[in-house]
Amino acid sequence: MSPPIAELVASFDGARLWSDLEALATFRDEGASPHTRRAFGDSYETARAWLREQMDEAGLTTRRDAAGSLIGHQPGAHDLPPLVVGSHIDTVDGGGRFDGALGVLAAVELVRSLARADYVLAHPIEVVDFTAEEPNRYGSSCIGSRAWSGTLDARLLALTDADGETLAEAMRRAGGEIEQLGTARRSAESIAAYIELHIEQGPVLEREQLDVGVVSGIVGIRRVHARLTGRAAHAGTTPVGTRRDALAVASEVVLAVEQEARAAAGELIGTVGRLAVEPNAPNVVPGLVELSLEVRSLDEQRLDASLERIEATAQKAGADRQVAVAFSLLSELPAVAADPRLVAALEEGAAVAGAGTMRQPSWGGHDASQIARVAPVGMLFAPSRDGLSHHPDEWTSPEQCAIAGRTLLAGLALLDEQLAG
Amino acid sequence: MSPPIAELVASFDGARLWSDLEALATFRDEGASPHTRRAFGDSYETARAWLREQMDEAGLTTRRDAAGSLIGHQPGAHDLPPLVVGSHIDTVDGGGRFDGALGVLAAVELVRSLARADYVLAHPIEVVDFTAEEPNRYGSSCIGSRAWSGTLDARLLALTDADGETLAEAMRRAGGEIEQLGTARRSAESIAAYIELHIEQGPVLEREQLDVGVVSGIVGIRRVHARLTGRAAHAGTTPVGTRRDALAVASEVVLAVEQEARAAAGELIGTVGRLAVEPNAPNVVPGLVELSLEVRSLDEQRLDASLERIEATAQKAGADRQVAVAFSLLSELPAVAADPRLVAALEEGAAVAGAGTMRQPSWGGHDASQIARVAPVGMLFAPSRDGLSHHPDEWTSPEQCAIAGRTLLAGLALLDEQLAG
Repeated sequence: MSPPIAELVASFDGARLWSDLEALATFRDEGASPHTRRAFGDSYETARAWLREQMDEAGLTTRRDAAGSLIGHQPGAHDLPPLVVGSHIDTVDGGGRFDGALGVLAAVELVRSLARADYVLAHPIEVVDFTAEEPNRYGSSCIGSRAWSGTLDARLLALTDADGETLAEAMRRAGGEIEQLGTARRSAESIAAYIELHIEQGPVLEREQLDVGVVSGIVGIRRVHARLTGRAAHAGTTPVGTRRDALAVASEVVLAVEQEARAAAGELIGTVGRLAVEPNAPNVVPGLVELSLEVRSLDEQRLDASLERIEATAQKAGADRQVAVAFSLLSELPAVAADPRLVAALEEGAAVAGAGTMRQPSWGGHDASQIARVAPVGMLFAPSRDGLSHHPDEWTSPEQCAIAGRTLLAGLALLDEQLAG
Repeated sequence: MSPPIAELVASFDGARLWSDLEALATFRDEGASPHTRRAFGDSYETARAWLREQMDEAGLTTRRDAAGSLIGHQPGAHDLPPLVVGSHIDTVDGGGRFDGALGVLAAVELVRSLARADYVLAHPIEVVDFTAEEPNRYGSSCIGSRAWSGTLDARLLALTDADGETLAEAMRRAGGEIEQLGTARRSAESIAAYIELHIEQGPVLEREQLDVGVVSGIVGIRRVHARLTGRAAHAGTTPVGTRRDALAVASEVVLAVEQEARAAAGELIGTVGRLAVEPNAPNVVPGLVELSLEVRSLDEQRLDASLERIEATAQKAGADRQVAVAFSLLSELPAVAADPRLVAALEEGAAVAGAGTMRQPSWGGHDASQIARVAPVGMLFAPSRDGLSHHPDEWTSPEQCAIAGRTLLAGLALLDEQLAG
């Protein structure tokens, strides 16, 4: 007979979670910003080998699926599909120590806490470190969770990085089995629920002085690649009227995206994060600009309308300057709602753990966005200092990590009871 | 007794000039755009060795000065300072076959023509291939001609490329003698006049269907490096009001520069040719942008006023978004006037050569801009198809190259007579 959930929650070791976060942070890409650990790099692989050891020691049976995701399994008391808890341990270039890592390491500590408290779940539990959640050099993201949901298609696998390597080749390098990818796909029957703890990556919880956020839904994201083709020419001797300046058009696009977000007053956000100029020489009129832009909103119609206006601005700016404008949709992540049962269990878990909480949307895409295609999902947020993420200064304090971990544990135990009914 | 100038001009071998242009074009940087031959690279050095052979065969006595410029000398009939004719054979990344190369190879063919016609100049002649005229990886330009005018100072020599190599180290690699740079400096007494033939790099001669342009003056150029420092943050979760988006500020700068040129209606031109974003990831708000901007005009006051307005726009755009804006002046090339005696001789030379001509400003900086500090200068332009330069499609036809070469030869011979007068 398992002890009461309050007793289980007290067994969660925040100091152990913190030391695991510190240990994982030692695996970093050489020559990059201090906490960078990009997917498919050497330090990513050694980090995952270390993580697998932690999972093994916690009593999980570990395996890698065909997409390379690392999965630790523990049987439950009953013959039920597993409760899945996880996140990812790759970072963006210039990223920090908490985005992704917190969710994976809290899940491992959760398994240890269950053992310490002799608490037996009705459901099996799976701890997952999904492969390559962050946007990668191949122009995609959420690789491991896409393999689960069946959206890791041939088009994505064939995308190449600047050196011409395909995503499929990168995955193979990292131990993925591309010919067996179908075996990684998960059916709705194979997952009872998916819960992911993640840092908020925004300023709301800090501003409201709350411990955790229970996510109501995850925004939809449209990512577009824009190719603006003008003509390179001498910067001094080409009159402004005969120039075909791709960077001037790109500048209008950047400002149009910013204007969309300003006008939407919190209902939509948009960014041009990547922009490359050719030939990129001080005295040559830019002949080509390629840029990536994205818009995010819980409201799908708003996403489409906003992208249409941005493209219209780009076409007009291009027509004014004889610059050809080509927009292509790179990815389209639908907005998803969190499952009401999971929202309720996580809110109840927060109460048990003594955590102040609120409901909030997730403005970031997550592996949960993919898993929502096949299973009920729920997410918890921990506060981000200054709202920062994808930045070396990303910070969530040891106390904040611990109370978020305890909320995750309590919520999972409550959900286990409710779903096992 | 030398023959009449008309007879001399007939000895200019346009086919030989063309075959030299084709031969020089075979020296190109591997893995780069097809006609790229950047200063300080391997192909640049082998090209200069080939050029030296051509000078030797033309009967010139060749040497390299301490800045690496290749100089061919031929005595004159009298003890006078030399008439100097030259240009450069380096290209920008992505450059073409005529910018610079035409002026150097026409000067070599000019020396051969003098010999064929048994025409003896009163002045000695010097043919010069100036080291590294184009903007280089070290943030400067006109290296060889700066050494002549004494403006190749310690600050420029210490500038580094992306790999940390200094300009001084690059010059040393290419055979320059940095400790002896003072010996390359030329006094006003050591040069009778400097004449440079160059492609127009603009559309005017082609539009007017003229053979050559006689340059009235060379525009002044101000180059500025702008560093825009915001803060990198997650693209989805950072509300637009709390972003410090460096790329949005950069976009306002690009459009402000374009607007200055539009408003100046042909009296000023401005360009942002280089722009780099950090961290440059699709889902990260740009935290840092560095860009190079330049403005050009024959009117110095206009240059200053324009730069002030651009910087004011940047500061306001930065203040609106909490992005720090730092402008630093990289280089300041004063506007220079062509010497009236050289303008007259070149116009007379065009008449002798049967070339249709007009006066026009040079919108591009040239080695002549530097040499104007110590000697009278004059320039001739040959037409550029579509006004293109700094582009692989740069094109001046064999006939256009030949008539420009004949004009150069006639102008030089006339100037020789007048100055020796």
